[in-house]
Amino acid sequence: MRILIAGGDGFCGWPTALHFSARGHEVAIVDSLIRRQWDEELGTQSLTPIYSLEERVSAWKEHSGREIRTYIGDLTDYSLVERVFRDFQPEAVVHYAEQRSAPYSMIDREHAVFTQVNNVVGTLNVLYAIKEITPDCHLIKLGTMGEYGTPNIDIEEGYIRIQHKGREDVLPYPKQPFSFYHLSKVHDSHNIMFACKAWGIRATDLNQGVVYGLWTDETRVEERLFNRVDYDGVFGTALNRFCIQAAVGHDLTVYGKGGQTRAFLDIRDTVQCVELAALHPADAGEFRVFNQFTEQFSVLELAQRVKRVAEEMGIRANIAHLPNPRVEKEEHYYNAVHTKLIDLGLKPHLLSDDIIRELILTAQRYKDRVNFDVIKPTASWR
Amino acid sequence: MRILIAGGDGFCGWPTALHFSARGHEVAIVDSLIRRQWDEELGTQSLTPIYSLEERVSAWKEHSGREIRTYIGDLTDYSLVERVFRDFQPEAVVHYAEQRSAPYSMIDREHAVFTQVNNVVGTLNVLYAIKEITPDCHLIKLGTMGEYGTPNIDIEEGYIRIQHKGREDVLPYPKQPFSFYHLSKVHDSHNIMFACKAWGIRATDLNQGVVYGLWTDETRVEERLFNRVDYDGVFGTALNRFCIQAAVGHDLTVYGKGGQTRAFLDIRDTVQCVELAALHPADAGEFRVFNQFTEQFSVLELAQRVKRVAEEMGIRANIAHLPNPRVEKEEHYYNAVHTKLIDLGLKPHLLSDDIIRELILTAQRYKDRVNFDVIKPTASWR
Repeated sequence: MRILIAGGDGFCGWPTALHFSARGHEVAIVDSLIRRQWDEELGTQSLTPIYSLEERVSAWKEHSGREIRTYIGDLTDYSLVERVFRDFQPEAVVHYAEQRSAPYSMIDREHAVFTQVNNVVGTLNVLYAIKEITPDCHLIKLGTMGEYGTPNIDIEEGYIRIQHKGREDVLPYPKQPFSFYHLSKVHDSHNIMFACKAWGIRATDLNQGVVYGLWTDETRVEERLFNRVDYDGVFGTALNRFCIQAAVGHDLTVYGKGGQTRAFLDIRDTVQCVELAALHPADAGEFRVFNQFTEQFSVLELAQRVKRVAEEMGIRANIAHLPNPRVEKEEHYYNAVHTKLIDLGLKPHLLSDDIIRELILTAQRYKDRVNFDVIKPTASWR
Repeated sequence: MRILIAGGDGFCGWPTALHFSARGHEVAIVDSLIRRQWDEELGTQSLTPIYSLEERVSAWKEHSGREIRTYIGDLTDYSLVERVFRDFQPEAVVHYAEQRSAPYSMIDREHAVFTQVNNVVGTLNVLYAIKEITPDCHLIKLGTMGEYGTPNIDIEEGYIRIQHKGREDVLPYPKQPFSFYHLSKVHDSHNIMFACKAWGIRATDLNQGVVYGLWTDETRVEERLFNRVDYDGVFGTALNRFCIQAAVGHDLTVYGKGGQTRAFLDIRDTVQCVELAALHPADAGEFRVFNQFTEQFSVLELAQRVKRVAEEMGIRANIAHLPNPRVEKEEHYYNAVHTKLIDLGLKPHLLSDDIIRELILTAQRYKDRVNFDVIKPTASWR
């Protein structure tokens, strides 16, 4: 299959590109490399050393004998999108090319506006390119479980059957996102749903949980293929951040009580889920939604688990409850359905002490790269 | 009350500004005047002659003795928004300043992207200005009934109580908008709901139906105060368009079967509803949604009614069923709740033969201004 990975230089995109290439698919990456600029803006960097995209793909060629084509440019520039689609003629597009940090979107007005315009316009451009150039191309779009918020009923996969005043319909699941970033994903979902209905586009929206880990079979081969991993207060996410904090002797920073329950998955399951979606495409005109995660944990539960594993490794770890910079419920009902990817054949890698241990060891190896000043949350929701 | 009318040079904004001014409120208008440019882009103009905003407000001063302050500029420019809020210190903002045509948003990719960026960024800027400068200011935002689409259950006012798997919650009503324009309003609604929750902003979202008529007590006083009215295939809406078509001897253009049922209201009720919302503000942190319309009609029903009234006036009118340029159901269930504005005291002006007759007479008076080439729909959804 000819598969285009938009955002293929990023945390999920790079391992996805390698995963498909390793399985014999024809892979191209389009990426503006802006994620690397945000590191400079924020004075941080990936815990692991990461090589330039050029070096990454040539290392992959050396190891696998396979080419990954690269296009450098921004999806908000339609002339670039058009050129990529005409040139590569993708049969599927995996669209990761969005600003993906909630705290980044909450820094100030400029960052909120940037996040929404960047994400919404990039996705609109991809939809138009599919419509105009490759109408049969399957759009695999990364959404987020954060689109749903924390309703007091079970979260379904994209749609819910509602009985109301003696009538019944299946309607899009109501969304209560947490930040301007999460809102941008909700906007995308609505736009894509409409494009499927109006133009007959086939799309899968993967509402992904929080991803942990960084190693896949391909990214661990050698340093030039390493994946990035973030520990800072803006791009670092729970679990990965806790492991790195434990490794470098920093408090594990839990926001508020830590009763916030979220959905999680291993990065090896990210690439597996995306592959399953690509191998079983949506029908023409279908807007399909999968909840892409394997387990639910409260934030405090994860911090406690990291603390225990760290202590078994002889590392003293302390949990610090910081004032919550976010506006969110710290205790709430949470139960999200996630059977559709299992039905397609997903074999989950559940969270193990081994993976926590490996994350801590990775972090210890690269602890000299950590800037302690950027660990605390800086963006406030209020 | 100090009330800012964003988009106060437009079809709903201008009569709203006059309505508040006539009632002794301190009114300011902010408008980029871009609506007048779109007429030039599309080769059309208002059926009625409309004067420059400067002439309008000075005519109003002559008649009423009251000043309306004007700021010329675009809400997507935050420095302008900031200046207006600091200078005028509004207690309420009525936000009409959006691209409001579904067909315009569907012309091509550029118009879709423009519509979404313009509407979403303008509203984000207003939200940030309220947060930073006038945190107690009540945002009265014009949404549209088209946000809901045509679900097979009753449409509620913004929220719906859902029972699901033995649990229950009140959640935002699911949205299935029809066009990139309607989608932009859904994006706005989600953004505003979040800002209310995160920042304690008070907001009322008025999901308005299709507005007909053009005369209010204030706009009919003399020609310099006249309101605009659109008959073209892009900005002209059902009913107003039918009356003008009848007056100039054009077929009444019904898209497809005409079984599409929509919500309608008289422009005099638009200004009345906005006034009721302003006089009874939302609570701090509350995101309140009112469905702002008075009656439901199918498009064919309206065309038939205009045909009958026209024929009683001695005008032969023919209904033409054009191939539907839109992707929408032509026969569907439709029943939308609209009690909250009635509860606040709305006294509806229901559709009468008199108003249809007056619209036809107005159109006959200005028939020389009509360009027949722009009446047919041009933008296709497909």
